[in-house]
Amino acid sequence: MEDYGRFLALLVSALHVGFVAVILSLVWVFHYREGLSWDGGAGEFNWHPVLIITGFVFIQGIAIIVYRLPWTWKCSKLLMKFIHAGLNTIAMILAIVSLVAVFEYHNASSIPNMYSLHSWIGLIAVIFYSLQLFLGFAVFLLPFAPVPLRRAVMPIHVYSGLTIFATVIATALMGITEKLIFALQNPAYSSSPPEAIFVNCLGLLLVIFGALILWMASRPHWKRPPEENAKALLPVGGTPEGTEAESTMTDGSQADKADLRINSDIARKQNLKLDEAAQRSTM
Amino acid sequence: MEDYGRFLALLVSALHVGFVAVILSLVWVFHYREGLSWDGGAGEFNWHPVLIITGFVFIQGIAIIVYRLPWTWKCSKLLMKFIHAGLNTIAMILAIVSLVAVFEYHNASSIPNMYSLHSWIGLIAVIFYSLQLFLGFAVFLLPFAPVPLRRAVMPIHVYSGLTIFATVIATALMGITEKLIFALQNPAYSSSPPEAIFVNCLGLLLVIFGALILWMASRPHWKRPPEENAKALLPVGGTPEGTEAESTMTDGSQADKADLRINSDIARKQNLKLDEAAQRSTM
Repeated sequence: MEDYGRFLALLVSALHVGFVAVILSLVWVFHYREGLSWDGGAGEFNWHPVLIITGFVFIQGIAIIVYRLPWTWKCSKLLMKFIHAGLNTIAMILAIVSLVAVFEYHNASSIPNMYSLHSWIGLIAVIFYSLQLFLGFAVFLLPFAPVPLRRAVMPIHVYSGLTIFATVIATALMGITEKLIFALQNPAYSSSPPEAIFVNCLGLLLVIFGALILWMASRPHWKRPPEENAKALLPVGGTPEGTEAESTMTDGSQADKADLRINSDIARKQNLKLDEAAQRSTM
Repeated sequence: MEDYGRFLALLVSALHVGFVAVILSLVWVFHYREGLSWDGGAGEFNWHPVLIITGFVFIQGIAIIVYRLPWTWKCSKLLMKFIHAGLNTIAMILAIVSLVAVFEYHNASSIPNMYSLHSWIGLIAVIFYSLQLFLGFAVFLLPFAPVPLRRAVMPIHVYSGLTIFATVIATALMGITEKLIFALQNPAYSSSPPEAIFVNCLGLLLVIFGALILWMASRPHWKRPPEENAKALLPVGGTPEGTEAESTMTDGSQADKADLRINSDIARKQNLKLDEAAQRSTM
């Protein structure tokens, strides 16, 4: 992998920032707020920020970059798809539980539901995330979708994934804003009590985490090597491009994976050279 | 251009959505709020959402995709760089004026500055935007930076541009949330008065505008054709790749632009074929 050290440094930074954000969300609800409970009270509401930050931000972020971890490139594509889908499913479940918590709290306290921009965009994000998960499962994990369909859907899948992730972080920032304005009354948010500074810092960490994940997910030279492309370059035993060979029906077990990786490195370098040439023209 | 009709449909949609968002921001401040003035009162604050949505969202969005408009591909790269930098400079000026408005309003009303997450992330976005503008000017517009430096900085410039744009939209959504909570007291935001519904819809438009711009800006086949690459493919009169020929010192006037465009189309198709092959491997 090109720039392996830099990738590793960014990965460690992202994991640290994300993990610290989860810890800060727990410190927020236990130290500054009412802790966690499931009784319709403020403690039930508090599951909302904790589960959103843990699942919908941190775990979703890891799910996005899981294909890019170089030590997983020797694992079969099918296994990686299951890990990607599994992490996203966990994130989805945590997001749904966090929505139940906030609806139950609102209902118990007679606070209207779904009036704020935060709630509108948040619900839209959850709906699109479910669609993304369902379509990803149907098109890329089940072995029925033909290659042309997978080829057509892949750019949309990648774009939607990153856009939903960014939207989730934006929604979390709106949620933090709402909560601090409502919860901090005496002293008010505007007088910057310690909780306000603390939770603002949590918000900043979410932005930094998002920026790190989006950088790692959008570098072309950190992509999982194009195995199918590599096979087309193999002198013997290669299957033609566009066949189902690399679909989820196979487990990706090839006769000589070492050879394949070397060839895929050549293919990657060819791609990058052309990418760079195209990019120079925009300078 | 591949998918010209689809690009045009998306462009028209983005321009409509962005323009309607600007109009809605004016309707918000004139119909529901105190209009516009420059006297330290609420009318001065109202410049803040109007100028941010007009400059920092709408104009910045157009600046991002200006290279991708196919009818500009016959214009010199230098001219397009000036348009890109000019639009971003206008967006920057409007953002700064909008900050002055909100600081003056806060000071006149004895409201503390810079306490909210919205203000923290907003100020960071403005600082990064200024840096981006300054570095873009120094590296890509002035004729002094060597090609290897431009090559190294370009991916960072593109990534930062898109990330700052997304962050600006997230900040606008936080700002809308703050303003609606503070301004709507009787009836409150939670009782969904017409202004709340109206401004929530404005927030949704900002998200849709951002999503459209990010889609258009991230499709590889809608990139401005790689002229330098094309020149290397020309049988006669071509300059070697990596020279300063396509830098800002030239105006991009070539002997036969039609030929050049045909050749650059071939280069683009070569790039895309390899891009597609690489993408298939991730399916």
